[in-house]
Amino acid sequence: MTNEQIYGAGIWHFASYVDRYATDGYGGPQSILDAIDVAGQVRDLSVVDLNWPFWGGDFSNEQVKERLDANNLSVIGITPEIYTKVFAKGSFTNPDPGVRELAHELITNAVGVVKYFGADYVKLWPGQDGWDYPFQVDHGALWKASMDGVGRLADENPDVKFVIEYKPREPRVHMSFDSVARTLLGIEKIGLPNVGILLDFGHALFGGESPADSAQLAIDYGRLFGMDVNDNLRSWDDDMVAGTVHPIELFEFFYTLRKNNWEGVWQLDQFPFRENQVQAANHAIDFLKAAGRGLDKLDFAAVQEAQNNHDALTALALAQKALFSSF
Amino acid sequence: MTNEQIYGAGIWHFASYVDRYATDGYGGPQSILDAIDVAGQVRDLSVVDLNWPFWGGDFSNEQVKERLDANNLSVIGITPEIYTKVFAKGSFTNPDPGVRELAHELITNAVGVVKYFGADYVKLWPGQDGWDYPFQVDHGALWKASMDGVGRLADENPDVKFVIEYKPREPRVHMSFDSVARTLLGIEKIGLPNVGILLDFGHALFGGESPADSAQLAIDYGRLFGMDVNDNLRSWDDDMVAGTVHPIELFEFFYTLRKNNWEGVWQLDQFPFRENQVQAANHAIDFLKAAGRGLDKLDFAAVQEAQNNHDALTALALAQKALFSSF
Amino acid sequence: MTNEQIYGAGIWHFASYVDRYATDGYGGPQSILDAIDVAGQVRDLSVVDLNWPFWGGDFSNEQVKERLDANNLSVIGITPEIYTKVFAKGSFTNPDPGVRELAHELITNAVGVVKYFGADYVKLWPGQDGWDYPFQVDHGALWKASMDGVGRLADENPDVKFVIEYKPREPRVHMSFDSVARTLLGIEKIGLPNVGILLDFGHALFGGESPADSAQLAIDYGRLFGMDVNDNLRSWDDDMVAGTVHPIELFEFFYTLRKNNWEGVWQLDQFPFRENQVQAANHAIDFLKAAGRGLDKLDFAAVQEAQNNHDALTALALAQKALFSSF
Amino acid sequence: MTNEQIYGAGIWHFASYVDRYATDGYGGPQSILDAIDVAGQVRDLSVVDLNWPFWGGDFSNEQVKERLDANNLSVIGITPEIYTKVFAKGSFTNPDPGVRELAHELITNAVGVVKYFGADYVKLWPGQDGWDYPFQVDHGALWKASMDGVGRLADENPDVKFVIEYKPREPRVHMSFDSVARTLLGIEKIGLPNVGILLDFGHALFGGESPADSAQLAIDYGRLFGMDVNDNLRSWDDDMVAGTVHPIELFEFFYTLRKNNWEGVWQLDQFPFRENQVQAANHAIDFLKAAGRGLDKLDFAAVQEAQNNHDALTALALAQKALFSSF
Repeated sequence: MTNEQIYGAGIWHFASYVDRYATDGYGGPQSILDAIDVAGQVRDLSVVDLNWPFWGGDFSNEQVKERLDANNLSVIGITPEIYTKVFAKGSFTNPDPGVRELAHELITNAVGVVKYFGADYVKLWPGQDGWDYPFQVDHGALWKASMDGVGRLADENPDVKFVIEYKPREPRVHMSFDSVARTLLGIEKIGLPNVGILLDFGHALFGGESPADSAQLAIDYGRLFGMDVNDNLRSWDDDMVAGTVHPIELFEFFYTLRKNNWEGVWQLDQFPFRENQVQAANHAIDFLKAAGRGLDKLDFAAVQEAQNNHDALTALALAQKALFSSF
Repeated sequence: MTNEQIYGAGIWHFASYVDRYATDGYGGPQSILDAIDVAGQVRDLSVVDLNWPFWGGDFSNEQVKERLDANNLSVIGITPEIYTKVFAKGSFTNPDPGVRELAHELITNAVGVVKYFGADYVKLWPGQDGWDYPFQVDHGALWKASMDGVGRLADENPDVKFVIEYKPREPRVHMSFDSVARTLLGIEKIGLPNVGILLDFGHALFGGESPADSAQLAIDYGRLFGMDVNDNLRSWDDDMVAGTVHPIELFEFFYTLRKNNWEGVWQLDQFPFRENQVQAANHAIDFLKAAGRGLDKLDFAAVQEAQNNHDALTALALAQKALFSSF
Repeated sequence: MTNEQIYGAGIWHFASYVDRYATDGYGGPQSILDAIDVAGQVRDLSVVDLNWPFWGGDFSNEQVKERLDANNLSVIGITPEIYTKVFAKGSFTNPDPGVRELAHELITNAVGVVKYFGADYVKLWPGQDGWDYPFQVDHGALWKASMDGVGRLADENPDVKFVIEYKPREPRVHMSFDSVARTLLGIEKIGLPNVGILLDFGHALFGGESPADSAQLAIDYGRLFGMDVNDNLRSWDDDMVAGTVHPIELFEFFYTLRKNNWEGVWQLDQFPFRENQVQAANHAIDFLKAAGRGLDKLDFAAVQEAQNNHDALTALALAQKALFSSF
Repeated sequence: MTNEQIYGAGIWHFASYVDRYATDGYGGPQSILDAIDVAGQVRDLSVVDLNWPFWGGDFSNEQVKERLDANNLSVIGITPEIYTKVFAKGSFTNPDPGVRELAHELITNAVGVVKYFGADYVKLWPGQDGWDYPFQVDHGALWKASMDGVGRLADENPDVKFVIEYKPREPRVHMSFDSVARTLLGIEKIGLPNVGILLDFGHALFGGESPADSAQLAIDYGRLFGMDVNDNLRSWDDDMVAGTVHPIELFEFFYTLRKNNWEGVWQLDQFPFRENQVQAANHAIDFLKAAGRGLDKLDFAAVQEAQNNHDALTALALAQKALFSSF
């Protein structure tokens, strides 16, 4: 079972990043086509999530597909870039109705790209939708606009899935879709079947959640449409290599997916600023494979029995043994 | 309008506290009757929230009422102590069904106390319900038990309001009712009209929320049944004196209540470990009064217009001027 | 006395910023010359700190000086850019000795720029010097390299002051000069009189310090060579407008400076991503002026007496009254 | 070599704890004698750190020694309780000189207990020394009092070692000895050879430090006199079971000790509120033994070479393999 697991990555894993200090970038491919070639070097990578519009050149869907095919990669999702300069004050919640419309159009066009590639979903990451200062926004209106924007898209495109990737903050000081519970609350209010959650392990950790609990909650609402993993120090979205800091919590996350028979791609959302990008992906996937083997070994019934008693140490001893011995 | 505002406090504000270091306590009254006398010395305090069973002696409702009357105090809520030793592994979610039943009985008895005092609600603060370690609990089962426990009470006592006070953590490393959104999600699932939220300003801040946003959300769901205030450094529930660290965010919180015509008691939930308890309450209430005067001065339409543009600095300039000039 | 206070700002306050999402920037001037013109529009701004090499074009010192003169601005410090792409793995601590030498040369050249402009200091912000992962670096060697790099510069340029601006993290997950105490420890080990601290209020807050305590400590070691202010939510270097979140703690910071007769420029280090840059600077300076007036009013002896008793509420009441009534 | 490693624990690991909610405690032994009996049940525990005065009864040194002997335990350190009610506003820094003198006397008496038991040191954990509010204290005076208090003791007792255990906060909102660097700065100012650091892994983590870096720094100053371990979520001193959350960072901590030939007891400082105390200690020591075996396997030269290049992933791969395969 484990050896059939499919692995994926956001294509930005293989891009050149900038931040407010290294404004000349940290190196790496300058176009999405080159990034695809780098992704192709990763062992066992099968699918990618693509930012859209394609960066680094004026590339057609066909050109991108050709390059993907050459690297044996297919597309799981499309991430429209609703967080660039024009959207600095928000996409769905921008105070300017023209910009809100622009976001709608951009995402609507992304729906076509999803269909072209036969991908699973449009990924919505409205990272600029939120606030920075006390008194800056009308919180009720802002939240309503967040839901309206997503709802309109889902309503207009009933044959396409939209997944919301929540995060506590960055680049805004506070992001509207900030947590698993808030996002589910919004999704339930929207009330459409084709809106779900893309659960990022690191975002959950950053938000003070236990990612395993977040996954269970989203599953219980039938809304866990996708996921990706990475690691961090809990106080920021560091997008470090998966498993390097929180191996046990990551294992508990996968345990929860397996226990619920959640079957889907295990994706990476990493930003290896100073590491070799292929090595960073391989390192993470090696961890994921070990986790998969660990789940094969783990005595689920014994874990469940310990959990029925809230017996942390017995459950942990089982989990530590199963995971660590799989390396 | 402002001068009709009613102020309240948790009676524990006037208790003696212990922690894991000063196990001999920080001083202060040793019984609830003495604490009531201290509360009576606070200027402009009208109502209190009482822990129950009454501490420091075997006191009857009548004895407590007599002492309250003598101090011109009435009761807004009753807080059953579902977080003591026997509940160390949870009240609603305890792995032992006998302990869960014990919690149910204790709270059911608290309903009677609420009725005796003509109070507004039973306050539920299930601080021991949650987890400490990865793999410790079955997250789905734990959350279901949280909702079932509250739902059963609300169902059995349709004429009484139950308010849930969420908090991210402490004493558990993670508390089940951890945030405004998670709590609303649970309340909506329970689906009964007599379950709401007691929003603690400091808990919201501690959880990375903007308390004004939390208030708006709870109001929009018709679930803001009560509130209390204090202050902290955002990384722990310090229960410091209200207004001492985050005056502007506290003002935005009150602004949101006023804007929504939310009328209710402005309560204190403070732990003045090393301060004079009466002085600590007076200091906070002085701040609250200044905030009230600030709201009277504030140009709500101008704030709204700035917020329509997400114009933080204009809105803040109005808020700072109105609040600070009211001191 | 207050009306003689000199105000300054990092010129980057008036730049266009990028981050890892809005890679096309948040708008604003595209060259340092244009940024100087914007800075010139701020009321009461007298001095600036300049990044070097000058950005947005190949400008000479003379060209920059001419533009500064036209805007009645002078230079307090020069900040060599030792945190760009080539320095992604560190400046003083880079594993490549050639890059370490490059950093040395760049800073040495910045010394000449300091002299040309008659500025006070070279500012060292080695933001890429640190680590991201456990096991990544030899901590002893890394710290030694940090001190050696600064020490060599200070030794070679005894007539110039070097100020180190510490910060807990960003862009690295951990920065070598992470706190006031660590930086002082390094400075004492270096043992030269021309190395000091540029204390950033927000960095101290971010690091869990009380900025007033940090200032006092640096002053007690004779090492407080400069400072700048801003605000944040304590968990990240948000570089928000000064006074908007933590007015009282900022007032305590200025109180500490005044009490110690520390006389120097009150500078801004803000990143108004989505705000009008001039308005953001004016808003902050208005706060600083109010703080100055508040200090004029404050009864220092009464505060000292309260502090002798650790009487927080009495001291706070004095401080709140003095500051807030000065708006 | 590893099999000679000595393991220890603070005796409070086997006590009954209270906190501000479960004021009736979490269960466990009610006297130090009973706690020693529980400690005696832990596999491979050889030494304990004792709070003093002894709790739960009026026990003589002889009685305690007898019980320790019966359990094959010896004493590594004595921890005078300078953080109880009388010291609520500080021990060394208390505003009342009488209380400061009381702290001095208590610790001086603890020196005698150290000598009686042939222990290594007096442990100073001045957890109540610090502040809660802005403006509460004169920071320069407070810090001076911290150093004076420790210095006086070290000066009067040159034949005894004093170790300071720093922590960012709790029970105060900010603790004076808050970090490894601040504590070293104070120790260097005191300037006596018999003052060092007791490095708590969890306190370093809580303070945003990398514990391996903290250990290296303390070693480089010749001041690492003792250590203990546990785990937490980085935002509070949770005192969880060692290795359960941060196995790799704990392994890096031990790596640093081994690399520097630091030989000393590996101690536990855990608060298993809801776990079986013996099981919690055994679980942690099992982890520590695995870490010891992992160090035996680890290719130190290869790690060093990777670190010379700041090559995180190569170093981590070596560390993960060595540690995890030792379970």
